[in-house]
Amino acid sequence: MNTKRIGILGGGQLGKMMGIAAQPLDLDFWILDKSLDFPAAHSCTHFVEGDFTNYEDVMAFGRQVDIIGIEIEGVNDQALQDLENEGKNVIPSSASLKIIKDKGLQKQFYKKYNLPTASFKLYDGPDDISDAVATGSLVYPFVQKVRKGGYDGQGVSIIKSSESKLLRASSLVENLVDIKKEIAILAARNQSGQIHIYDPVEMVFNEEANLVDYLFCPAQLTLETQVKAKFLVSKLINEMDIVGLLAVEMFETNKGELLINEVAPRPHNSGHHTIEAAMTSQFEQQLRCLLNLPLGGTALRSPAIMINILGAYAYTGKPIYDGISEVMAMENVYVHLYGKKETRPFRKMGHITILCDSIESGLQKKEKIQKKLRVIA
Amino acid sequence: MNTKRIGILGGGQLGKMMGIAAQPLDLDFWILDKSLDFPAAHSCTHFVEGDFTNYEDVMAFGRQVDIIGIEIEGVNDQALQDLENEGKNVIPSSASLKIIKDKGLQKQFYKKYNLPTASFKLYDGPDDISDAVATGSLVYPFVQKVRKGGYDGQGVSIIKSSESKLLRASSLVENLVDIKKEIAILAARNQSGQIHIYDPVEMVFNEEANLVDYLFCPAQLTLETQVKAKFLVSKLINEMDIVGLLAVEMFETNKGELLINEVAPRPHNSGHHTIEAAMTSQFEQQLRCLLNLPLGGTALRSPAIMINILGAYAYTGKPIYDGISEVMAMENVYVHLYGKKETRPFRKMGHITILCDSIESGLQKKEKIQKKLRVIA
Repeated sequence: MNTKRIGILGGGQLGKMMGIAAQPLDLDFWILDKSLDFPAAHSCTHFVEGDFTNYEDVMAFGRQVDIIGIEIEGVNDQALQDLENEGKNVIPSSASLKIIKDKGLQKQFYKKYNLPTASFKLYDGPDDISDAVATGSLVYPFVQKVRKGGYDGQGVSIIKSSESKLLRASSLVENLVDIKKEIAILAARNQSGQIHIYDPVEMVFNEEANLVDYLFCPAQLTLETQVKAKFLVSKLINEMDIVGLLAVEMFETNKGELLINEVAPRPHNSGHHTIEAAMTSQFEQQLRCLLNLPLGGTALRSPAIMINILGAYAYTGKPIYDGISEVMAMENVYVHLYGKKETRPFRKMGHITILCDSIESGLQKKEKIQKKLRVIA
Repeated sequence: MNTKRIGILGGGQLGKMMGIAAQPLDLDFWILDKSLDFPAAHSCTHFVEGDFTNYEDVMAFGRQVDIIGIEIEGVNDQALQDLENEGKNVIPSSASLKIIKDKGLQKQFYKKYNLPTASFKLYDGPDDISDAVATGSLVYPFVQKVRKGGYDGQGVSIIKSSESKLLRASSLVENLVDIKKEIAILAARNQSGQIHIYDPVEMVFNEEANLVDYLFCPAQLTLETQVKAKFLVSKLINEMDIVGLLAVEMFETNKGELLINEVAPRPHNSGHHTIEAAMTSQFEQQLRCLLNLPLGGTALRSPAIMINILGAYAYTGKPIYDGISEVMAMENVYVHLYGKKETRPFRKMGHITILCDSIESGLQKKEKIQKKLRVIA
């Protein structure tokens, strides 16, 4: 339909699901990633083998397409900036991506724009943190987060005492927040400045893996909190001048405050339920943003629960989805497998969306599914 | 997920939409058709260039896969039968496909099993028909249908008088039916014999092109007629021993009778709305049938209208979807473009599904869309 060529850096599950959404719209959709074994390889019009962290690979790829998007933040910054200078449309912009990739800059941004977030300090590394503890300017317990490259539960550590091991990287340190719940809100903004916001989701974590175990939508929030949260997100996406999706993770504290935790400028795990549960899936929405098309509706069609299918703890190797056929026999259950060639403990291998009349009834189905389905090797 | 390799004969829009449905399930999904320019080329794991009417091409393709399906009836019969004899799983079976491909055998089948259909006679060709008219055993007006190869409004002619031109092929001739409405019901049956039936849709034709102009679901039928229609379809799919989808087109006469018009043993134009409007899309349902998985739910999530996007009358060439961006700005409107490289008058270039609170409100949106959107070249 559109003669513009879209190129996405990254061929994991997010690239794959964007690619699936691109097909009904007949889009020219290219992917750059290391190997044809990756999830998105057969969900695009062209798959280019290369490394999205490598300057030359990104430049060569970017010059072949009209619009450059991402499915992961850890791409080569310099190449994105140079492609912008060559007149390419890079979404999100290299400037906003630079802020988001560095949790320190992210936090400073929130502070600058009066966006609520947990109080924090920045440290160059574990030695500085130890010094601060020694001088009493920092007290246990606290949360240490590496500024760059943390992903899927990596790079975050709760430091309870001198016994806890500090992460060896430039970090931000936050006070422990008195968390009541963790929510996420997905917003979309196109180049014309149109903004659409999805309903908040509530996330429940797998403590062991520090990954989302399941989420449900709508989040159980008071109407006042919902309105406040959506307002915050619309302020944030505007101030950051983001084009495309922005997934905003927030804490609701026991005092009823909302604190922004972190953001991702791309489709996000917390939006997977939108494929079946919202009027427009986050993946189609991202394509609409990339092409500066009018945004699609974000209304929820049905309450939903999303479960990540994680690799079982003790298995590494070619995945076997034990119990999948029984899961597919359940009504209103939608299976998404990413096609990863190897399962590993807690690796995200797929997800399942349950459409339900109420979150309560959906949670019963979730329990059954989690008992039946195991990714072994 | 499933190590079985699916091979589909035909790479048009139905193959493409099956291929899109295969991706979230991580299926090994192969397509055979003439050219990589065809719609399904980038919606499969492997596209094999070849001719599905050619014995050698189908045999070579079929031997590479485990389960053979179709997206069009006009495939090489002998090859399907020989592949079955070699132990391949062919769905639908060559025996049922043989009946369905020949409208004469189809009608005889209905008669044999007491399934209601318009009365008919078979003729070897136009000369026999003329003779029958001459001897008075056949009287004007009547409908002539070629027994084999008719498709998308081709091969059907209403013969009003000796002025009307007879089709030059082995044909069946039916009395004109006093049609109140045309409906279609989609049913699915897996190898275990599980049957799921979708809600009836009502079809409105573009008289000029003799193609479905739009359809809506649920059809406006009395509860009694709905029940009767679904019962007929479940009897039919069982008697024909169909595995996979069976789309059944029926007439409701002004007297309230239901008459089976014709069937197709595959995903069908009358089921496109199921992608957004039903709990399970017809394309995922067909994959479940091919793999003998439990069938998915067929409940309607929302009333829906489906419009075919047809090539505008006066244009042939590289398609331009004039007005598409305005259409995408409408809420609850889902665009599907098939990616055909050339538009031609009345060619099916895509479809649009409108989700609506009521058919009445949806029809207003349909009118707007049909005014805005034109496929030109």
